[in-house]
Amino acid sequence: MDLDAEDLAAMVVAVRRFAASELEPFAQERDESKRFPVEALARAGELGLGGLYVGEQHGGAGLSRRDAARLVAELARGDVTVAAYVSIHNMVAWMVDTFASDEVRAAWLPGLASMRCLASYCLTEPDAGSDAAALRTVARRDGDAYVLSGVKQFISGAGTSHAYLVMARTGSEGARGISAFLVPGDSGGLSFGPNERKMGWNAQPTRQVVLDDVRVPASHLLGEEGDGFAIAMRGLDGGRINIAACSLGGASWAVERAAAHLHSRIAFGKPLSAQQALQFRLADMETALEASRCLLDRAASALDAGAADATKLCAMAKQFVTDQCFDAANAALQLHGGYGYLSEYGVERVVRDLRVHQILEGTNEIMRLIVSRAVLQRAAA
Amino acid sequence: MDLDAEDLAAMVVAVRRFAASELEPFAQERDESKRFPVEALARAGELGLGGLYVGEQHGGAGLSRRDAARLVAELARGDVTVAAYVSIHNMVAWMVDTFASDEVRAAWLPGLASMRCLASYCLTEPDAGSDAAALRTVARRDGDAYVLSGVKQFISGAGTSHAYLVMARTGSEGARGISAFLVPGDSGGLSFGPNERKMGWNAQPTRQVVLDDVRVPASHLLGEEGDGFAIAMRGLDGGRINIAACSLGGASWAVERAAAHLHSRIAFGKPLSAQQALQFRLADMETALEASRCLLDRAASALDAGAADATKLCAMAKQFVTDQCFDAANAALQLHGGYGYLSEYGVERVVRDLRVHQILEGTNEIMRLIVSRAVLQRAAA
Amino acid sequence: MDLDAEDLAAMVVAVRRFAASELEPFAQERDESKRFPVEALARAGELGLGGLYVGEQHGGAGLSRRDAARLVAELARGDVTVAAYVSIHNMVAWMVDTFASDEVRAAWLPGLASMRCLASYCLTEPDAGSDAAALRTVARRDGDAYVLSGVKQFISGAGTSHAYLVMARTGSEGARGISAFLVPGDSGGLSFGPNERKMGWNAQPTRQVVLDDVRVPASHLLGEEGDGFAIAMRGLDGGRINIAACSLGGASWAVERAAAHLHSRIAFGKPLSAQQALQFRLADMETALEASRCLLDRAASALDAGAADATKLCAMAKQFVTDQCFDAANAALQLHGGYGYLSEYGVERVVRDLRVHQILEGTNEIMRLIVSRAVLQRAAA
Amino acid sequence: MDLDAEDLAAMVVAVRRFAASELEPFAQERDESKRFPVEALARAGELGLGGLYVGEQHGGAGLSRRDAARLVAELARGDVTVAAYVSIHNMVAWMVDTFASDEVRAAWLPGLASMRCLASYCLTEPDAGSDAAALRTVARRDGDAYVLSGVKQFISGAGTSHAYLVMARTGSEGARGISAFLVPGDSGGLSFGPNERKMGWNAQPTRQVVLDDVRVPASHLLGEEGDGFAIAMRGLDGGRINIAACSLGGASWAVERAAAHLHSRIAFGKPLSAQQALQFRLADMETALEASRCLLDRAASALDAGAADATKLCAMAKQFVTDQCFDAANAALQLHGGYGYLSEYGVERVVRDLRVHQILEGTNEIMRLIVSRAVLQRAAA
Repeated sequence: MDLDAEDLAAMVVAVRRFAASELEPFAQERDESKRFPVEALARAGELGLGGLYVGEQHGGAGLSRRDAARLVAELARGDVTVAAYVSIHNMVAWMVDTFASDEVRAAWLPGLASMRCLASYCLTEPDAGSDAAALRTVARRDGDAYVLSGVKQFISGAGTSHAYLVMARTGSEGARGISAFLVPGDSGGLSFGPNERKMGWNAQPTRQVVLDDVRVPASHLLGEEGDGFAIAMRGLDGGRINIAACSLGGASWAVERAAAHLHSRIAFGKPLSAQQALQFRLADMETALEASRCLLDRAASALDAGAADATKLCAMAKQFVTDQCFDAANAALQLHGGYGYLSEYGVERVVRDLRVHQILEGTNEIMRLIVSRAVLQRAAA
Repeated sequence: MDLDAEDLAAMVVAVRRFAASELEPFAQERDESKRFPVEALARAGELGLGGLYVGEQHGGAGLSRRDAARLVAELARGDVTVAAYVSIHNMVAWMVDTFASDEVRAAWLPGLASMRCLASYCLTEPDAGSDAAALRTVARRDGDAYVLSGVKQFISGAGTSHAYLVMARTGSEGARGISAFLVPGDSGGLSFGPNERKMGWNAQPTRQVVLDDVRVPASHLLGEEGDGFAIAMRGLDGGRINIAACSLGGASWAVERAAAHLHSRIAFGKPLSAQQALQFRLADMETALEASRCLLDRAASALDAGAADATKLCAMAKQFVTDQCFDAANAALQLHGGYGYLSEYGVERVVRDLRVHQILEGTNEIMRLIVSRAVLQRAAA
Repeated sequence: MDLDAEDLAAMVVAVRRFAASELEPFAQERDESKRFPVEALARAGELGLGGLYVGEQHGGAGLSRRDAARLVAELARGDVTVAAYVSIHNMVAWMVDTFASDEVRAAWLPGLASMRCLASYCLTEPDAGSDAAALRTVARRDGDAYVLSGVKQFISGAGTSHAYLVMARTGSEGARGISAFLVPGDSGGLSFGPNERKMGWNAQPTRQVVLDDVRVPASHLLGEEGDGFAIAMRGLDGGRINIAACSLGGASWAVERAAAHLHSRIAFGKPLSAQQALQFRLADMETALEASRCLLDRAASALDAGAADATKLCAMAKQFVTDQCFDAANAALQLHGGYGYLSEYGVERVVRDLRVHQILEGTNEIMRLIVSRAVLQRAAA
Repeated sequence: MDLDAEDLAAMVVAVRRFAASELEPFAQERDESKRFPVEALARAGELGLGGLYVGEQHGGAGLSRRDAARLVAELARGDVTVAAYVSIHNMVAWMVDTFASDEVRAAWLPGLASMRCLASYCLTEPDAGSDAAALRTVARRDGDAYVLSGVKQFISGAGTSHAYLVMARTGSEGARGISAFLVPGDSGGLSFGPNERKMGWNAQPTRQVVLDDVRVPASHLLGEEGDGFAIAMRGLDGGRINIAACSLGGASWAVERAAAHLHSRIAFGKPLSAQQALQFRLADMETALEASRCLLDRAASALDAGAADATKLCAMAKQFVTDQCFDAANAALQLHGGYGYLSEYGVERVVRDLRVHQILEGTNEIMRLIVSRAVLQRAAA
C-alpha cells in the first residue's frame, strides 16, 4: 500500500541523504577498485531498503512498488550499481516472502531485510539468456532434499551473497518443468567463476555460479515443482520496475550535473547555458526523464493493483525508461565536452552503468516482444 | 475537480460513441470538401463538450483538465480536426469564464457551452507568430468602447465563429501592453481572408481575421488593460494539454488500425503480424502512446492543482506528445504499406492533421525554450 | 558510360531550367487538380529524359545510372511527382531496351524515349505487394499470342499510358513461373479502376489495371518465359536509384526554402537564422542530404559497374535516402512554422509526395531484408 | 595524389594484417593497463603510417587524404585508440611539413614519418575548449627565441611524445594573435600533469602539458606570427577526416562481430540471425556504415582537391560519421546481449573509445555551427 505523502517524503529524504553522503563520494573509487560495498549495503538495510516490499512482520518495509521505485531511484543518484544490486536483492527477497515455506521465510527474511544477508537471482545460463526457459540446470529429488547441478551466468553478487535463488529443471523441457530453490551460500558443491571484467557495474561482482551436486532441503523449494518459471517471471515484473528506477535516478543526477556545468562553463564570452542549441538539448533530456518518471509510476501502480496489463506495462517501462535514460545520460556526457569523458566528473561512469540496464532483466528486445504480443492479442480480440 | 471513475467512464463511453457514429464515418468527406461541421459541433455541445471546464452555473461541464483531456482524446479518435477545434473553442470559453465581466459571462457562456455559439482564439499575426508579444493589432479606448484594428493570422473557425477572443495592444510595446477582448462575430468592420489551403485540418476553416475599426463595448475587455498576454498564455497552458490530447486520440486510432491491418494482411504465407520487425515497430508505437498518455495526465493534473511547474509540464507534454504521436501515426501509415497512402484508409489524413499540432499553440521549439528556462533556473538555484 | 563533366553540367543546367520554368510554377495547381501533365512530359522527352539509359540508336540518351540520377534529382526540384513518374517510365524503357525483341524495341523505344508514348510498370497486385512473387495475374499461351488476365494495383500512369509492362504467371507458383509482357494501351480487354485518392503524388494517376483476356503477340514477351521476375527485379534496382533521386531533389529544394525562410523571417528582434537551435537543425538536414547524395552516387556507380553488391547498395540507398529526405523535408516544414502547413509555400506538398517513396519500389522494410541478407551471408562466409 | 588501385589495395592489406596481428590481440590488455604501445607505433611507422601525407623526400608516404583515411580506418579495426593517436600524430606531421622552416622539416620529419619520434597537438586549454581562439598560453619573443608559458589540456601522447605542436598567443586577443610552434619534448620548463582517468582511449596517455618559460628557437615558429590559428584549423580539417576514419574502422569491426555473434548464438531453437527484428537492426547499422564511408570519401576528396567547401564537408563527415558509428557500435554491443557488456568481447571497449570522437577535434556541436554557417551563407547569396 502507498505510504502517505509525508511518510514517503521522509523516506525519500533519508535515502537521498544516505546516497549523497555514503554512496556518491565513493562511487568513482568503487568503480575503479571493483569493490562491492557490503558495509554500505548493511546501512542501506537499516534504512529499510533490503526488504522494500517484504512484509513488516519479517522486518520488511511493506512498501508499494510505486513507493519502492521512488526510493530506488533516489539511491541510484548516489551509485547506480549499488542501487541496481539492491533492486536484485529485493527481487529475491520478495520471491522468498511470497512463495517460500513459512520455515524458510522465518529463517531468511529478517537477514535479507536487514541486508546482513545478501541475495543473488540465478536464472540466466551460458546457453540460455533471452530464452530463459531453455535452462539446463537440473534439480533432482533425493529423499528430503533436492540436488542441483548446472552453471548460472552473469550472477550479480555471486561469491559474496548468502542466498542464491536458483531456477532449475525438475521436469520436462520448457517453462513448465522449472522449479525455484533457495540455495544457501555455504552449501557444499557451490563455487564461483572469476569476476567478469565488464564495461561498468563494477561495484558489484558478476560471476558464474557453479552448482555441482549442491544439496538443499526440500523445504527450500519455492511454491510447487514446476512453478519456478512463473515465479521467476513474476519477480522480474518488479525487477524491471526497479532497474528502470535505477536508470532514472542515475540519469537525473547526470542531467542535473550537465545543467550545472552549462551554467559554470564560459565559452565565446558567455556561459554555455546561454547557447540555445544546448538549451534545447537539455529540454529534451528533461522531458525524457519526466516521461520516464510518469510511465514508471504508471507501471508500478499497475503492478500494485494487480492489473491484467501489469506485465505489459512493466515491460514498456523497462524498455522506455532504460533507453531514454541511457540517451539522456549520454547527452549529459556530451554537454560536458571533454570533461564528460573524464572519470572524475562521474557522468561517464553513469553512462557505463546504465548501459547494461538495456540488456538485463530481459533485454529490451524481449520487452518489445512482450509488448507486441499484448498489442496484437488485443487487436485480434 | 476530477469526476468519480464511474461518471468519467460514462462520459468517455458517450463521447466515444459520438465520435464513432457521427464523426469518423464522415471524416474523409469533410477533409475533401473542407466542410466545417457546425451541426456536429452543436451535438458535441449537447454532450457537454463546449464548456468542458466552464462552471456548471453557466451551462459548462465543470470538469478537471485531466478528465477533459480524456474526453478530447476520445473525440479525436473520430476526427482530429473537429476535436482540435473543440479544444480551441474551450480555450476561449475558459478565458471568458475566468476573466470576463459577469455581464459578458452571462451573455456568452451558455451559448459557448452549448456550441451553438462558436469561438475563435486570435493571437497570432502575420508578423508575430512565436514572438506573439510583438503583435501590432491596436485597441484604443473611445468612450465606453474600444476600437480594434489589425490583422490576425491562422485563425481557426474564422468566418463562422460567433465570438473572437482578440489580443490587442492598448499600451506600450511588449507583453505588458496587451489586452484581451471578446469581439462578437457580427461586429461592424470585421472581415475575413480566404480559407487557407493547407496540408490538413481541412474540416475547420483557417482564415485571416481583419479588424478595421471594430467597436466593442468596454465591458468586453477581459481582466484589466495589460492583462491580455498573461490571459492568453494561461489559456494556452490548457490549450496545449488539449491539442496534445487530440494527437493522442488520433494516433491511438491509427495504431489500432495498423495492428488490425497487420493481422488481416497476408504476405509470404502468413499474416504481417507474424513478422517480428513489424511487431517490434508496433511495440514501440504503443509504448510511445502510453508514455504520452502518462505525461499528459501528469501535466493536466499539475494544471488542475495549480502547481508551480504547471506551465513547464504543459509545455513538455505538448512537445513530447505531439512529436511522439505524429511519429506513431506516420509509422502506422508505413505499416499499411501502399494502402496507408490512400485516403480511404484514413491514416494518411490523421498524419496530415497531426502535423500541425507540432507547430501551433506555440511551436515545439517554443516549448523547448520554456522547458529549458525552467531547468536552467532550477539549476541556478 | 559517364558523361564528361562538361556535358553533364550542361544537361544539369538544362533540366534545372526546365524544372524551374515549366514544372515548379504549376506544381501546386497540378496537386490540387490532380492533373497529369502529359504535355510537360513530352517536353521532358525532348530533353532526353524519356530514355535516360536507353541506347542512342533508339533515341535514348544512353546515360550512366549515375548521371541519370543527377538529372532526375534536378527534375524533382521542380515537381517530385512528375520526376517520379519519369523514373517509372524509364524503368520500363530500360526493361524494353534490355530484354525485348528487336521488333518490339524498334516499334516502341523511339516513342518511349520521346515520351510521346508513356509507360506503366505493373507488378503489384491487390494481394501481392511486398511479396510480389505471389502474384496471380495469368498469361496463357494461345497460338502466336499470350492472353493475360488479372488485376494490377497502384499503377502509376494507368489509363493514360500507352505501354504497360505486365508481370504475369506463365508457369508454376513462385518467382520462376513469372514472365514479363509489354501490353499496348489500346489492347482489347484492358480497363482501369478509378483514380485513387491519396496523400500526395497527385500529379500522376494511380489506378488499378484490369486485364480481362487481354491478347498480346508472343513477341511482346520480354526475355524467356520464367524470366519475368528477374527482369522486374533488375528494373527495380535502377528504379530504386531514381526514386531516391526524386527524394533527394525534393528535399534539397525544401531545405533551401527553409534556409531562405529563416533569413527572411524576423522574430524576437532578429532573423530566425540567428537562432542557434534552428541553425543546428538546418546543419543536420544539410548533412543528411549530403550523405544521401554520396550514398546514392555510390549505388548508382555500382549498378553501372555491374558490381556484385549492386542490389544491396541500391536497397541501402533507396531506404536511407528516402527516409533521410522525408525527415529533412518534414523538418523544413517545421522551420517554416505555420506557413509550412500552407499549400502555397510548397513544402507541405513535397512532404506528402516524398512520403510514398518510403513505401513503393519495395517498401523500406523490404530494403532492410535485402541488406540484412547480404550482411548475414557475408558474415557466414 | 591517389594511389592506383593496386598499390592502395596492397597497403590496405598490409595495414589490415598489421592491425589484426599486432594490435587487435593486445587491445584489451592495453586498455586495462593503460599502456601506450610505442613499439607498435614504431612498426606502424615502418609501414608508412607516421607520415601519411608528408612528402616522400622527407620519408613520408605522400598519400592523398582519401587513401590515408582508408588506411587509418583499417588500423582502427585493430585498435581504435592507437589509430586515433596515429591520426593526431599525422596532423602534426602534416603541419610541420606544410608550414615549418626547411631546417625544422629536415630535422624533424624523418623521425616523425618513422614514428620513432612521436608528436602531440596542443591547442585546447583548461578554459578554452570549443572556443579555442580564447587560448591564453603566451609566447613572447626574446632574441632568437620564443619563450612559452601556459597550460594545455587533454593532450594525447603528452609525456611520451618528442614533439609538441603548441598554439600560443604572440599578439592581441582573438584568432589573429595566435602563432604555432614546434616544441621539442626535452625542452627545459616543459612538464606534464598526471594521466587522466577516462572512459576509454586508455591506450594513449592524456595529460596536461605545462609550459613554464619554455624556450624554443625562433625557427620553430610555423608560418608567420599570427598564422597559428589558421594553421591549427587547417590541420583539423584533415584531423577530422581521420578521426572519423577511426570511428568507421572501429564500428565496422564491431558490426562484423555482431553479425558473427548472431549466427553463432542459438535461442528459441534457432540462431539469433534468424530473428527478423535483429536482421533489420543489422541492416540499419550496415547502411549507416556505408553512408559514413561514402561521405568520408567525399570530404577527403574535397580536401585533396582544395575545394572551397572542404572545411564544411570535413565538418559534416566528422559529425555524421562519429555519431553514426558510435550508434552502430553501441547497437553491436546490444546485439551481443550480456556478452556485449563483457570486456573480453571487445565491443564495449570500441564503444568507449569511439565515444570521445564525438567530442574532440571540435565537438560535434561545433561541427554543426560550421555547417550551418556555410548553409546560411549560401542561402543569403
